[in-house]
Amino acid sequence: MIKGIKFSGVASGIKAEGLDLGIVVSDDDLNCLAVYTRNAVKAGHILYNRALKTKAVRAILVNSGCANACTGKKGIEDLGKIAQAVSGALNIEKKSILFASTGVIGKRLPTQKIISSIPGLLKSLDENNIDLFARAIMTTDTFPKIARFNFNGKKEYKIIGIAKGSGMINPLFATMLVFIFTDFPVPAQRFARDFKYAVKGSFERITVDGECSTNDTVMLFSKKSGEDEEAIGLFIEGINKVMKDLSLMLVKDGEGATRVIHITVKGAKKKDYAERIARRIAISPLSKTAFFGCDPNWGRFMAAAGDAGVPLNPEKVDIILQGEVLAKAGLEVPFDEMRLKEIMNRKEIELVIDLHDGRSSFDIYTTDLTYDYIKINASYRS
Amino acid sequence: MIKGIKFSGVASGIKAEGLDLGIVVSDDDLNCLAVYTRNAVKAGHILYNRALKTKAVRAILVNSGCANACTGKKGIEDLGKIAQAVSGALNIEKKSILFASTGVIGKRLPTQKIISSIPGLLKSLDENNIDLFARAIMTTDTFPKIARFNFNGKKEYKIIGIAKGSGMINPLFATMLVFIFTDFPVPAQRFARDFKYAVKGSFERITVDGECSTNDTVMLFSKKSGEDEEAIGLFIEGINKVMKDLSLMLVKDGEGATRVIHITVKGAKKKDYAERIARRIAISPLSKTAFFGCDPNWGRFMAAAGDAGVPLNPEKVDIILQGEVLAKAGLEVPFDEMRLKEIMNRKEIELVIDLHDGRSSFDIYTTDLTYDYIKINASYRS
Repeated sequence: MIKGIKFSGVASGIKAEGLDLGIVVSDDDLNCLAVYTRNAVKAGHILYNRALKTKAVRAILVNSGCANACTGKKGIEDLGKIAQAVSGALNIEKKSILFASTGVIGKRLPTQKIISSIPGLLKSLDENNIDLFARAIMTTDTFPKIARFNFNGKKEYKIIGIAKGSGMINPLFATMLVFIFTDFPVPAQRFARDFKYAVKGSFERITVDGECSTNDTVMLFSKKSGEDEEAIGLFIEGINKVMKDLSLMLVKDGEGATRVIHITVKGAKKKDYAERIARRIAISPLSKTAFFGCDPNWGRFMAAAGDAGVPLNPEKVDIILQGEVLAKAGLEVPFDEMRLKEIMNRKEIELVIDLHDGRSSFDIYTTDLTYDYIKINASYRS
Repeated sequence: MIKGIKFSGVASGIKAEGLDLGIVVSDDDLNCLAVYTRNAVKAGHILYNRALKTKAVRAILVNSGCANACTGKKGIEDLGKIAQAVSGALNIEKKSILFASTGVIGKRLPTQKIISSIPGLLKSLDENNIDLFARAIMTTDTFPKIARFNFNGKKEYKIIGIAKGSGMINPLFATMLVFIFTDFPVPAQRFARDFKYAVKGSFERITVDGECSTNDTVMLFSKKSGEDEEAIGLFIEGINKVMKDLSLMLVKDGEGATRVIHITVKGAKKKDYAERIARRIAISPLSKTAFFGCDPNWGRFMAAAGDAGVPLNPEKVDIILQGEVLAKAGLEVPFDEMRLKEIMNRKEIELVIDLHDGRSSFDIYTTDLTYDYIKINASYRS
């Protein structure tokens, strides 16, 4: 709980059933740092928030069930109407209200339903309703995602992060909605670079299905007043930890996922080579189905690595799965397949590809590809 | 049937059961044009054939069940031993024998089993045993893939193409083994460029799972003697048709596929833009699961297009599915969802993305992503 920052959630009827509208309201003006999707098709809330150029945020309204993407000018006007209603109900400036959306692309928001739900939504505002808010922004997520970090400077500070996944999760840039709140007085200008680094080191290190969403949003809200130079190091550590925790929750809750696979490519001549090989394996359906089937089919990892579009000398490559060497210098090392299958039947899998070609490395988290991913996505709208 | 070109197939024990070894033997020397995988990890047969630099081919031995990839120098030596045995049995030069393999990566060929099977394999050699050969090279394919084209020049000529799929099928370059035989006297030097164009227009226009194999091989074998300048146009037409036919069989038999989706991106400023958008949609798991579920979820196609890494103005884009306009100028056009679901429940689907930004276009064939793809690939080796 952060003093003066209140959360709420409600079922407004955007979805056929369940919570679908959340809000966060602050007693004081907040700074906001945001990173949005790199997809050329951007959702209405991204275009709206960017145009607003607001310096003082008092509220963010988030809905699930409708992405408000590919809705054009009308989709942006819809947000203006909703902002007007929230502004009146809370008696705050219209331009202090931001938005985020997630759900089906191409459909307009049911503006009237949302506006009618605002009184009920505001009634439940409470500093302790973080879980309610986290649930209201879920789509195919199976659990709410909240991460916390406390640290001491001149006083005790708090960081609270809330995220939703769990499909269209792609590393460049990671797909989801993430909201982080802190009562630490963040020097926004100075911190902008660290913020991007933290995003790169967390949300850009996960992938579920290689799909880059139209709605990706990471926002950090912080108090405007005060200053605590000495605690900045701790704050940066905290932000990195909260983002890493949330990103691991996202990948763990990836659509249909039964395992999280941590892929490390090391011994690369350049970091870019390591990154492209790691990302290529992380989105390879044949590698991901092998993980689902507990099949130590290392040739699939090798084939994916060879298809990464960077130089690769297969005769130098070692492949290590759960600490067991499957291939050395590009050739199979005899291993007990039944035992391997057994140690692959875990929730967390470590795969290391050693290129023996330099000193650079890169790591990324991904999921297996399962029947349930197909089930969820072949019937998401119905 | 082509006079003097004989086919055979046998179960040699590479697989636990079924046909797994095929051979084609020619009475006369043949020219061979070949294109191999772009994957940095290349199978043993590719390294072996390339090093051979043979000008006169008499036989090609093809096995399924073992890719002979990631097997290093030993894997190449294995082929030398097998070539020695085939050479002795057929009384032809060792260097006139080529190889191709498909199957699990990282395992050595069972050289002794293969050598012991050669007498039985040669016993069934027959100009009419094309189907037997086509079956011997299958892995997860559900039907043998043979395409034919006859045309007249100075005499009647024939083209016979044989292919196998059906996973690790990726557009750059298309993954599979393809063998095409003709009695037309191909002027190899002059035809090399047309050959590559034909490959680009067929096998590089399909994808099943975006996975580039270590073993991709397309080979064209033709008679060395004779000349028929005037029929070259017809021959090129025939090669293009045979390759297109085979590539459509490959995608139709894609692992677990229930539909073939033909994606056309038009109105692009550059052909490269159209190609990258078409390829991005073709490998998008969310688009592919939508096709499986008969879900006219056009936002997923739009999101994939926006993630293609090329300029895109969503406000100009039309999306047309089975002739029905789902989105115009980036916005949804009201459509009857139940009727759309019905017309999506077909074996063949046409998706057109019109960018309204220029005159270039590109088209590609892909499959849906289904439970059976997961089933096949989570248990391929067991």
